[in-house]
Amino acid sequence: MATDPQIIFTPSGRRGTVPVGTTVLDAARTLGVDIDSVCGGRGICGRCQVTPAIGQFAKHGITSSPDHLSAFAELETTYRAEKGLAADRRLSCTATVCGDLLIDVPPESQVHRQVVRKDLAVRDFTVDPVIRLHYVEVVPPDLASPTGDLARLFEALEREWQLTDLQADLQVVRALQPALESGKNRVTVAVHSGRDVIAIWPGFHESIYGVAIDIGSTTIAGHLANLADGSVLASAGVMNPQIRFGEDLMSRVSYAMMHPEGAEEMTKAVRKALDGLLASLANKAGIKRAEILELVLVGNPIMHHLLLGIDPTPLGGAPFALATDRAVHTSTAELGIRAHPGTRVYVLPCIAGHVGADTAGVILAEEPQLAERMTLLVDVGTNAEIVLGDKRRLLAASSPTGPAFEGAQISGGQRAAPGAIERVRIDRRTLEPRFRVIGVDPWSDAPDFAEAVKETGVTGICGSGIIEVIAELYLAGIVTEDGVIDGSMAARSPRIVPNDRTFSYVLSDGTEGSPRIAVTQNDVRAIQLGKAALYAGVRLLMDQLGIDAVDEIRLAGAFGSQIDTTHAMVLGLIPDCDLDHVRSAGNAAGTGALIALLSRAARTEIETVVRQVEKIETAVESRFQAHFVEAMAFPHKTAEFPHLATVVPLPPRSRDAAGVDGTGPDQRTQRRRRPVAAGTREDA
Amino acid sequence: MATDPQIIFTPSGRRGTVPVGTTVLDAARTLGVDIDSVCGGRGICGRCQVTPAIGQFAKHGITSSPDHLSAFAELETTYRAEKGLAADRRLSCTATVCGDLLIDVPPESQVHRQVVRKDLAVRDFTVDPVIRLHYVEVVPPDLASPTGDLARLFEALEREWQLTDLQADLQVVRALQPALESGKNRVTVAVHSGRDVIAIWPGFHESIYGVAIDIGSTTIAGHLANLADGSVLASAGVMNPQIRFGEDLMSRVSYAMMHPEGAEEMTKAVRKALDGLLASLANKAGIKRAEILELVLVGNPIMHHLLLGIDPTPLGGAPFALATDRAVHTSTAELGIRAHPGTRVYVLPCIAGHVGADTAGVILAEEPQLAERMTLLVDVGTNAEIVLGDKRRLLAASSPTGPAFEGAQISGGQRAAPGAIERVRIDRRTLEPRFRVIGVDPWSDAPDFAEAVKETGVTGICGSGIIEVIAELYLAGIVTEDGVIDGSMAARSPRIVPNDRTFSYVLSDGTEGSPRIAVTQNDVRAIQLGKAALYAGVRLLMDQLGIDAVDEIRLAGAFGSQIDTTHAMVLGLIPDCDLDHVRSAGNAAGTGALIALLSRAARTEIETVVRQVEKIETAVESRFQAHFVEAMAFPHKTAEFPHLATVVPLPPRSRDAAGVDGTGPDQRTQRRRRPVAAGTREDA
Repeated sequence: MATDPQIIFTPSGRRGTVPVGTTVLDAARTLGVDIDSVCGGRGICGRCQVTPAIGQFAKHGITSSPDHLSAFAELETTYRAEKGLAADRRLSCTATVCGDLLIDVPPESQVHRQVVRKDLAVRDFTVDPVIRLHYVEVVPPDLASPTGDLARLFEALEREWQLTDLQADLQVVRALQPALESGKNRVTVAVHSGRDVIAIWPGFHESIYGVAIDIGSTTIAGHLANLADGSVLASAGVMNPQIRFGEDLMSRVSYAMMHPEGAEEMTKAVRKALDGLLASLANKAGIKRAEILELVLVGNPIMHHLLLGIDPTPLGGAPFALATDRAVHTSTAELGIRAHPGTRVYVLPCIAGHVGADTAGVILAEEPQLAERMTLLVDVGTNAEIVLGDKRRLLAASSPTGPAFEGAQISGGQRAAPGAIERVRIDRRTLEPRFRVIGVDPWSDAPDFAEAVKETGVTGICGSGIIEVIAELYLAGIVTEDGVIDGSMAARSPRIVPNDRTFSYVLSDGTEGSPRIAVTQNDVRAIQLGKAALYAGVRLLMDQLGIDAVDEIRLAGAFGSQIDTTHAMVLGLIPDCDLDHVRSAGNAAGTGALIALLSRAARTEIETVVRQVEKIETAVESRFQAHFVEAMAFPHKTAEFPHLATVVPLPPRSRDAAGVDGTGPDQRTQRRRRPVAAGTREDA
Repeated sequence: MATDPQIIFTPSGRRGTVPVGTTVLDAARTLGVDIDSVCGGRGICGRCQVTPAIGQFAKHGITSSPDHLSAFAELETTYRAEKGLAADRRLSCTATVCGDLLIDVPPESQVHRQVVRKDLAVRDFTVDPVIRLHYVEVVPPDLASPTGDLARLFEALEREWQLTDLQADLQVVRALQPALESGKNRVTVAVHSGRDVIAIWPGFHESIYGVAIDIGSTTIAGHLANLADGSVLASAGVMNPQIRFGEDLMSRVSYAMMHPEGAEEMTKAVRKALDGLLASLANKAGIKRAEILELVLVGNPIMHHLLLGIDPTPLGGAPFALATDRAVHTSTAELGIRAHPGTRVYVLPCIAGHVGADTAGVILAEEPQLAERMTLLVDVGTNAEIVLGDKRRLLAASSPTGPAFEGAQISGGQRAAPGAIERVRIDRRTLEPRFRVIGVDPWSDAPDFAEAVKETGVTGICGSGIIEVIAELYLAGIVTEDGVIDGSMAARSPRIVPNDRTFSYVLSDGTEGSPRIAVTQNDVRAIQLGKAALYAGVRLLMDQLGIDAVDEIRLAGAFGSQIDTTHAMVLGLIPDCDLDHVRSAGNAAGTGALIALLSRAARTEIETVVRQVEKIETAVESRFQAHFVEAMAFPHKTAEFPHLATVVPLPPRSRDAAGVDGTGPDQRTQRRRRPVAAGTREDA
C-alpha cells in the first residue's frame, strides 16, 4: 500500500499528507489553509483558484509534477470559457491530489486578503467583512417530509457551510420561496455575523456592497465598497442639509432647544441626505441600490444623535451626557433609508460628550493605540477633538475652539467653497498680499488671475485661509505677538486701515463685484481664542501624560487636510513637533468608517479601544484655563517651539526690539529665513 | 455569641439560618425561595408582601413571634397609606429578621404564580412572561466620568438585577435621556428574554400588557392580559376582512394567484384588522394601546403566511411547502400595527402545509403530548386539522373537509351569525322539525318564537345546524345510510319534496320575508364528503398508531364548540368514543396563544413538540382513499361505534328491515331510546 501523497501550500508553508483523490480545496481546509469559496466547491465562483508549482523543491523535499493533479476537468473548462482562467491556474474545488504537490494560493484566493487601494490612503488591514455570501443547494420540499423552506435552507447551510444557530429576517422568509423556485433550489444567501440571514438571491450571486459614511456638520461623505474584495468603487459627498437649521453644531442644538419639532426636522433632513447619497454612490458605481447590504456611519456626537433620532440638547450643556457610548446596531429600514430590505447599519461608538464616533473613526484609521511614538490626532471643527497617546495609554478630549476655523464669525469668513481664499502670502517688505482662491488655479498676482477668477469671484475667506493670513500678518510684523493689528504699520502700507478703534488689514479690494475682504481685529481675536482652546486642550492631555513634546501629529478632517502645517505651528495651533512628522490624515473619520465596513475585527478593536480611552473633560480641569490664557499670544515662548524656529523666521519679539518703523524684519530673523511652504515666493 | 436565627418559608418548606438584620426578601433569595419584586426592594411595588406566622410550630421546631421581625418601618407605613397593606402583611424587602420566623409567601407574591381565571377555561400553567419589569436607580452623569446614559442604565441593571449582556432598542436609547430626567434618574425598564431592553418609563411603572390573537379565516379573536399577573382584562373579536377576497381559504389562495397584488391586499387587510382589534381591546380594558408590549399570534398556515406578507400560493398545491415551520419573531413596527414602539410579536410555529400555528396553539392548550390516554384533537374548518396521540407519540394531519361545515356550498348555508339555524330536532313520527336560531332564545315550536324571531329572521343554516339536521334526517329514517333522501317518505310528510331528480326536505317554510330553507340531496352529499374526509384522516392516524379506539376527543374551534357531539358521532364525523370523554375545547388555538403570551416555558415547549410531531400527509397515503370511500355511509358499521349504539336509537339498517311505511322507529330502537342531548324533546 503506497503512502499518501504530501502536499505543501505556499505562502503559508502548511504541509501534510492527504489521501489520493482529495480535492485541493479539501486538502487546504484539512491543513488549515485559507482558501476562499462562495459556491461551496461547485466550480461556479472561481474564488478558489490556485497555482500548482512544477519542479523539484529541494527545500521542501518534494517533487511537484503536473501529473500529480487530476486532469483538467469539465467544470474547469466551462469556467475558463465563461469567466476566464489563467493557463497556470486550477480550481482547487475540482482538481484532486494524485501525488506530491506544491500549491501556491494567490492573494485573491485567500479569505483574509490584504486590501489594495489606489486613490485612498488607507492603512493595511485584512478585508473580512461582517457579511459573507454562501451558495447552497436546498433539498426540494417533499410531501412525505413536510419541513418548511427555511428549515431546509438552514439544513443546507449547516451541511455545506457548518453554519448553525442561524436566524432569518422576515423579509428573507418572504423572499425564500420565490428564490428557491426561480433558482431551482439553488440560492445564494448573505449571512451577517455568521448568524443572521439578511438576503437571498436565486442561483449564484457574486457581489454585495457596503457604504461607509462620515456625517460632518457641513459635508456628508461616503465610500461605496465591494464587500467581497474590499475594493472602493465610488466616493461622493453631499452638503449636510441641516445647515439650513444652523451653520455650526451649537446653533443646531439651539434650534432643537427652541423648536419643539426641531430635532426631528434635522433627523429627517440628514436621513434624506443619506438616502440621496446612497443613490448617487450606487449610480456612480453602476450598481443597484438594493445591492447595498451594509452601512457604517461615523459623526460627531451631535450628528450621531440627530441621525439616530436622539435629542441632542443634553449634549449642549454640562455634564454633556451621551445617550449611549456604545456602538449602535440598527437598520436602514429603521432609519428610513432605502437600500436592500435587510441592510444593517453599524454606527461606531462615541467616546464622550464632545468626542464622537468620528474620532473613533480617526483612531481606527490611524491606530495610535498601536503606536510606539507619542501621537497626537486633532480633528478641528466647532470643537476640536483631540486624541493623544501611544500603545501604552490613550487620552481623548474636546476643546471648544468655536466656529472661527470653519470660517464662521469671521468678517469675511465662509465655508471652503469655490471663491473662498484658501492660501495667503504677505510680502514681508511691501506688506502686499497674494492669495489663491478655491476653484481658481493661478495666484492673485499672476497675469491670468483676473480672467481665471471671473467665474467664481473672490467671495470670502475659508478656515485654512484665515490661519494663513493671520500667520502671515504675524510673520510680517503687522500683528503683534499679543494679537494686535499694529496701527503704526499703516504708515508702511495703505492696506492697514483704521476700523472703529482698532485696525484692519485689507486682503482683497473687492473690484468687479467681489466684496472687499479685510481681516479685522475681531477676526484675529476669534482665531486667538480658537487656537488657544485647541492648544490648551492638547497641553492638558500632555500634562496628564507628563510629556513635553509629541512625536507625531496628524491633522484630520477637511480643515486639518487643508491647513498648512507650518502656518498652524506659527500660530501655535498645534504643539511643537518636527514638521516632517506633522501630516494631514485626510478624512480619517471616513477612512475609519470604511475600515469598520470591511473588517469585522476592526469593529471589535475600536469598541475595545473606545472603552479604554481615558476621557478628559476640559471644562472641569483648572489647568485648562491656565493653559488657555497662556496660549493666547503668538507664538508661545520659543522654548516650547524649538522646531518652529528652525523652519520659519519669527518676527521681532516686540515692537521695541525691531523695526517699528516698518522697514521690515531685522537682520537676525532674515538670516534664518527659509521657504515657508511650496508656493511661497522668496521675498529676500 | 448567639447563633443565627432560623427562618422557614411556607408553602415551599425551605429553611435555613440567616444573620440578624437580613431582610426577609434577601433571606428568601438566599434560601432559593421565589418572592416577586419589581422595585428591587425599595418598598414601592408591594409585590414582595409576606405573612409572618405567629406561634409555636412544633412540626418545624421553632417559635415564630411578632418581635422576631423588625418593627413596622416608615416605608411600610407609607405603602399602607398609599396603596393599602393588610394587617398581617409585611413588605419582605423592608422587614428584617430578629429571631426565628415562619414566613408564608402568599401566591400573589410568588414570581411563578399559578394563573387563576374566571371566564376562560384555561389549563393550569405558571405565569412567567417573556417580559419583566425592573425598576432601577441610575447613577447620574458626571463630568469627570463621561459614560453614556445607556452604559449607566446597564450598570444599574447589572448591579441591582444581575442582568448582563443587555442590548437596547434604538427607540429606548431615544427615550432614555427624557425618562432619566423626568424620573430623576429612577426609571423602570421592560426587559424581553432577559436580554433586550424594549421599553423605559420614568420612575416606577407597574403595568404592562400583552395580547394573544387567533387569526381565523372568518373571525379574529384576541385576549388582552396583564403581563405582571396573568389576568385577562378583555376579550374581543372582529371579522377577518379578508372575507371580501374569498369566503374560504382556498378561494383566498386563488385570489392571490389571480391578482398580482392580491396577497399584498390581503396582508394589508388582516394587519389593519389586528390594528383595530388592539385598539378595541385596549379600550375595553381601559389601558393605552402603547402599554401593549407583546403580541402572540396563531393562525392556520394561509392566515399565517398572509399575516407575515409571505406568498401563500405554494400552500395551494403539492407539496404544500411552508415558507417556515419555525416560530417567527417579529415586531408590530415591522407589521405596521400600532402599539408600543418596542412591541415584539411572537408567532407560534406552523406544523405542516395544512396544519398551522393554530393547531400548535390547540396542542399547547390541551397538551396531548403529556396525556396518559389516547387523545384526539380536531379543529374543523375548510381543512380539518387533526392531532392524535399521547405522551408516547403525537401525530398530526390535515383532511380536506371542504367548506360545507362552515355553511358554504350548502343551499341554505351561511356563517354562524344571528338568523342562522344552529339546532334542529326532527320528530321521528311526524317528521316535523323544530329548530333554534342564533340570537333567538325560544325554539321554533314555542308560542313566542314568531315574535322573538322578528328581528333576525331565519336567514339560513350554519355548520352546526347542518350537522344536526342531517343527523336528525338520518335518525328519522328520511336519509338512508347511503345518504339518499328517501323519496318514498314523501307519502308520510309534505316536507319531503321532489327537486330535479332527487328529493329535498323543507326545514323552514320561509314566511314573513325569511327565505324557504331546505336540505337538498346535494347538501347531504357535501356533508358526506366532508365527514368522510375528516373520519378518513382520523382513521389514518389511528392506523399509523395501530389503535382501534381513542380515549378522549376534543373538538376545537368555533364549529367544534357548537356542534352537538352525539349528532357528530351519529354522522360518523368523529370516531367512536365514550361520549363523556368527548368535549368541546372552545377556542383552544386562542387559549394556546394566551398561554404562550404568559409563559416563556410554554414557547420552548411548543417549539420542541412541533418538531417532534409526526406529520402525516393524507394526500400521499393510499389508505386514506380506502378509508374515505368506506366512511361515506351513515353511520359506519356499528362494530366501529359500540358507544354510539348505547346512547342514540339508530334507524333501521335498511328499508327492507324496518318500517318503510313511515310509521316510526321499530320496537328494537325504541327500547334503546334515551335523551339525545339537552333541549331534545322526547317524542315517544
